[in-house]
Amino acid sequence: MNVNEVYPPDRVALREVGLRDGLQLVGSWPGTAAKGEWVRREGAAGVRWFETGSFLPAGTFPQFADVRQVVDAVRDAGAHGIGLVLNERGAEAAIASGVPELACVVSATETHSRANVRRSVAESIAVAAHACALRDAAPHRPLVSATIGMSLGCSMTGTVAAADVLSIAERLFHAGVDLVTLADTVGYAGPAEVGALVRAVRPIAGSRPLAVHLHDTRGLGLANAAAALDAGIRILDASLGGLGGCPFAPGATGNIVMEDLAFLCEKQGFATGIDLEALCATRAILADEMPNERLHGGLARSGLPLGFSGAG
Amino acid sequence: MNVNEVYPPDRVALREVGLRDGLQLVGSWPGTAAKGEWVRREGAAGVRWFETGSFLPAGTFPQFADVRQVVDAVRDAGAHGIGLVLNERGAEAAIASGVPELACVVSATETHSRANVRRSVAESIAVAAHACALRDAAPHRPLVSATIGMSLGCSMTGTVAAADVLSIAERLFHAGVDLVTLADTVGYAGPAEVGALVRAVRPIAGSRPLAVHLHDTRGLGLANAAAALDAGIRILDASLGGLGGCPFAPGATGNIVMEDLAFLCEKQGFATGIDLEALCATRAILADEMPNERLHGGLARSGLPLGFSGAG
Repeated sequence: MNVNEVYPPDRVALREVGLRDGLQLVGSWPGTAAKGEWVRREGAAGVRWFETGSFLPAGTFPQFADVRQVVDAVRDAGAHGIGLVLNERGAEAAIASGVPELACVVSATETHSRANVRRSVAESIAVAAHACALRDAAPHRPLVSATIGMSLGCSMTGTVAAADVLSIAERLFHAGVDLVTLADTVGYAGPAEVGALVRAVRPIAGSRPLAVHLHDTRGLGLANAAAALDAGIRILDASLGGLGGCPFAPGATGNIVMEDLAFLCEKQGFATGIDLEALCATRAILADEMPNERLHGGLARSGLPLGFSGAG
Repeated sequence: MNVNEVYPPDRVALREVGLRDGLQLVGSWPGTAAKGEWVRREGAAGVRWFETGSFLPAGTFPQFADVRQVVDAVRDAGAHGIGLVLNERGAEAAIASGVPELACVVSATETHSRANVRRSVAESIAVAAHACALRDAAPHRPLVSATIGMSLGCSMTGTVAAADVLSIAERLFHAGVDLVTLADTVGYAGPAEVGALVRAVRPIAGSRPLAVHLHDTRGLGLANAAAALDAGIRILDASLGGLGGCPFAPGATGNIVMEDLAFLCEKQGFATGIDLEALCATRAILADEMPNERLHGGLARSGLPLGFSGAG
């Protein structure tokens, strides 16, 4: 699989991460059939990239026990599925599932890495390298991506030096990953910082794409997304209704809202291929399945502007 | 009074509009003493510009019956007060109150102007001209500002031509106003549009400042604020907790959140003079006085980033 075919460089790719990041912290979650329906409806609205779940022992995160069925549902919807892998065994399970993209995670700081996954940064990079080796041996040749968590600030150490992020990105690309995602895991960044980091990492990526995973913890998520678009980013994560909290900031909001992000992209001249009204209607499935979760976002509440026509 | 002394061009001025725009639609509101406490606490946190209320017959908008006392409270807090005036009589009452700034409003479209204030655009500009004449005759020489509502899209007519906004801005400055505010009254704009409109109006303003009044109706409020800062805007409206809805979009959110806007400014390198934690603490007065209003914003929920130091 070629990364520039999965993520065409001349268009915006919005990745729905609600089925993984959005379900990471919740106490109850949609059943397998409802997850399938979520994928079908959001896929029909035009979303083409889905995080499917995490390849972990089902005992630790039962919400991801059906990740293989979600991978299948995404494939059946004609969309691209991504599976989170945090260790070698997860990578092997992900390869076996046929998921077309394995997503690894590396913390930008040693402190957070050890606290979060009890592993050093170098050990996390080694997991990504292992995933790349598995990829190269697999007939279906999935992609391997890597997210650098806390790229724009760390809840345990504060400011993160861009040089540290650059060094990790360089080692990840050297290990063979197809794509690196810069994550503002705790919503510490402002637009200028996002733009500066993207521009600094860009030369390291060469022809391989960069993505951003932004959180709206302190209200700047969409301002940061606009800055990322300005800096040339074309792959952005978000979740329907902003589903998902923040493991390092209890009570905080998490992912930026897919509907509002898609609206932003269209306003900025980037065609998303998404039917915004159909996308907003997809929220019903979350309201039905997870009635205790608060759904965020302005577009779904207020509707499209009168006479709005998208970028397409 | 010199507009460049009230709004120094080399610093950011964040105007608290909660006491007017935030109370425009609510069914209950803080009493005069609580409004005074709100001004004192938010003033002590570093906010220096306050919309105080509207000079209208108390029978129509009883929440503004005590506007004169709020004007006094703002003056006593050493801050700058702004009073909304919608007609000649309001302008005369505002002059008599001693409020240091009279804020007039003009709709960008004839349709909205007639529906909203039963007056043509030209007639609204004439009100601003009248306010300027009163200003020039008043010993205390207040400022006269004018907001162009629906500058970035109209809930009744859709897209608004920038040429119409430019023409109105030109006529307002010709009438003598000290300051023009471009308002995205219904949250239709995206960052590129905000930047383009600001840059188009700038030459008309000359040395007189431009401001923006942005609503977060569709989630893009802070992205638009970042674009306005990028385009050179240094005067922005917001309200504590995002208080205030949208008269033309029932159920929608309104003003951008003061706390998150101040955080954005500091992140972007603009010192606000505001103690962000003290500002967040000020929300308590709204929670106490208006328990049925939902307060918005990420910073107050999540707190400052670890190790955060502002732009100052």
